[in-house]
Amino acid sequence: MTAIDAASVARAYWETAEARAWKAFGELLADDVLYECPQTRERVRGREAYVRFNREFPGDWHVSIERIVAGDDRAVTWTSFRTGSGTETGIAFLDLDATGKISRITDFWPEPYEPPTNRAHLVERY
Amino acid sequence: MTAIDAASVARAYWETAEARAWKAFGELLADDVLYECPQTRERVRGREAYVRFNREFPGDWHVSIERIVAGDDRAVTWTSFRTGSGTETGIAFLDLDATGKISRITDFWPEPYEPPTNRAHLVERY
Repeated sequence: MTAIDAASVARAYWETAEARAWKAFGELLADDVLYECPQTRERVRGREAYVRFNREFPGDWHVSIERIVAGDDRAVTWTSFRTGSGTETGIAFLDLDATGKISRITDFWPEPYEPPTNRAHLVERY
Repeated sequence: MTAIDAASVARAYWETAEARAWKAFGELLADDVLYECPQTRERVRGREAYVRFNREFPGDWHVSIERIVAGDDRAVTWTSFRTGSGTETGIAFLDLDATGKISRITDFWPEPYEPPTNRAHLVERY
């Protein structure tokens, strides 16, 4: 895999999800794809379960790509995930196997929070 | 910049921070480096202020690199940030300028949270 290929796979992953093109989405995945969300300790194993996880994911969501960084057999995506209740930021680490299929997805959803006051003198707010 | 160079700069960024080697850390940065944390809307502008932000960052912290994904003039780092009160996950997007200096840092700190129950049938927990 080249970096360009890994970026293309990452882009297709989100574009097929947004299009609800679940057959094409599934074709990007390895049979034994492993999905993990370290923040919630949720895990999904295997292509069928992972396509279902996305297909049945609750709500009227839309996703757009903010940035892709890709190198060799890995990519990271920064996305905006919009639902009726607002927009969240998603960051996904995608690992590709030797055939270019996505074999592992590690998903992060950083939420807004109030910064500690003990570093307030070192920053501005925007 | 090649992907290997961007990865090396990203690695040096965290290694010099961990070593409190602030002169070497600062030499990795562009004069007008811009740091932003979208979750807190904190911002730091310029090398001097950004070195100070790190040098004076409260607490006895230690950082180790879990993963670097780098391509062209960009890198993403996944780190573990340990303090007396536990270990946090950090994800930083680093943009390099044409001379290989870090010109922009976008920093995310995803925290643990409880997943919505409406997708519980689609996942296992670990």
